[in-house]
Amino acid sequence: MHYYVLTLFPEMITNACGESILGRASQKGLISVEAINIRDYSTNKHNRVDDYPYGGGAGMVMQPMPVYDAWKDLTERIGKKPRVLFMTPQGKPFSQKLAEEYAKEEDLIFLCGHYEGIDQRVLDLIVTDEVSAGDFVLTGGELPAMMMIDCISRLVPGVLNNEASAQDESFEGNLLEYPQYTRPEVFMGESVPPVLLSGHHGNIDKWRREQSILRTAKKRPDLLKNAELTQKEKNWLREQLIKKNKKTEKTLDN
Amino acid sequence: MHYYVLTLFPEMITNACGESILGRASQKGLISVEAINIRDYSTNKHNRVDDYPYGGGAGMVMQPMPVYDAWKDLTERIGKKPRVLFMTPQGKPFSQKLAEEYAKEEDLIFLCGHYEGIDQRVLDLIVTDEVSAGDFVLTGGELPAMMMIDCISRLVPGVLNNEASAQDESFEGNLLEYPQYTRPEVFMGESVPPVLLSGHHGNIDKWRREQSILRTAKKRPDLLKNAELTQKEKNWLREQLIKKNKKTEKTLDN
Repeated sequence: MHYYVLTLFPEMITNACGESILGRASQKGLISVEAINIRDYSTNKHNRVDDYPYGGGAGMVMQPMPVYDAWKDLTERIGKKPRVLFMTPQGKPFSQKLAEEYAKEEDLIFLCGHYEGIDQRVLDLIVTDEVSAGDFVLTGGELPAMMMIDCISRLVPGVLNNEASAQDESFEGNLLEYPQYTRPEVFMGESVPPVLLSGHHGNIDKWRREQSILRTAKKRPDLLKNAELTQKEKNWLREQLIKKNKKTEKTLDN
Repeated sequence: MHYYVLTLFPEMITNACGESILGRASQKGLISVEAINIRDYSTNKHNRVDDYPYGGGAGMVMQPMPVYDAWKDLTERIGKKPRVLFMTPQGKPFSQKLAEEYAKEEDLIFLCGHYEGIDQRVLDLIVTDEVSAGDFVLTGGELPAMMMIDCISRLVPGVLNNEASAQDESFEGNLLEYPQYTRPEVFMGESVPPVLLSGHHGNIDKWRREQSILRTAKKRPDLLKNAELTQKEKNWLREQLIKKNKKTEKTLDN
């Protein structure tokens, strides 16, 4: 997978993508991340790429020409026109499903805006996908772009050491992941749940699934509707919730 | 605002937070970002901080002791116990509203997990807020932490050059931002909308608000329910949508 990031802050991209799992994936040649500095395409002798918005208002707007030239130069060099993802709170919310779709591509271009945004005319011309990191405002598109690169790269075969790791994960079957424990057996007086030390794989799997169900019911009940629970599990969850309520009532009684 | 990030990849944090608007805010002393390497608190001669999960399964789990010691050392040094935000897809979805809440704090600690997560016992002990960047899986919590730091910092007085810039923004009144244009007046044959060159502020404001309404209706109809539209604006929007439908019908007829 080849990523190309059109940005005013190329160091942000190259630094972050050189670390950890993404860094290793680059070294192994499984992914490549190239940051292209839009400022290199400034048509202005002061190397400026932004100007005041027509019609007035606060902040500066990125000019269309440098963005277009950076994109044109890139697509001519690589000889193809990959999808162009523009990072904007107006876009489609990024999700694991969207990541799976993008992971099927061979090349992806990320366009990162700064300041008050980018001139609409160049967006209309080159952007294929508007994607949002969430309902919040950032100073630029670089961090969402890196986050999406991270998420998509996990799905590229070979990037995670363990194939199982990409699967046995958060949201598997619309359930949150169970709690994890590692050494030492006793930490600050708290022991690891005994079942995990039992060596009985059936019991461990059952306990973990119950914990997943319980957590999802507590933290993300919206996911539970789409989780496939057996009738037995549904009954068990109902019992747990009733128990918990009784406990709460008891505390209130005292 | 002082941010402390407990992480296995401190360079990722310091590099990204040294650039652009965040970098300037740090230089001005409006914010500070300190990355604390959890690995420095390893109790192991090989500097390891992870181990196999009890009960089996893919991947490694971060051990509780180094995380706890890093947190303890920090809180003793600064003489207070700020909120600890743990980056997890199981958490509360991050939003502009949550950012506004966090922006009121003086100090914030971000805890970034890696691999298959962190031992549950230390999370139970130190974490005050579980926060999620969205419904997707990442290789670590560093990118979401940086994104949240970016979003929260925009709200710290003085960080944005122009006070208006933080307000006149995406989601203002539950409407998406209007399109922006800057020089040149004609780009690739496309002119800037004439109203923006008219100098008539009343007309410009009206046009921009209409564009915001139209965009929101098209891209994020879910936001529109909570937007405060006048009856006149509602009628106008209805007309536009009917016009658009007629156009589509006509195309289908031909």
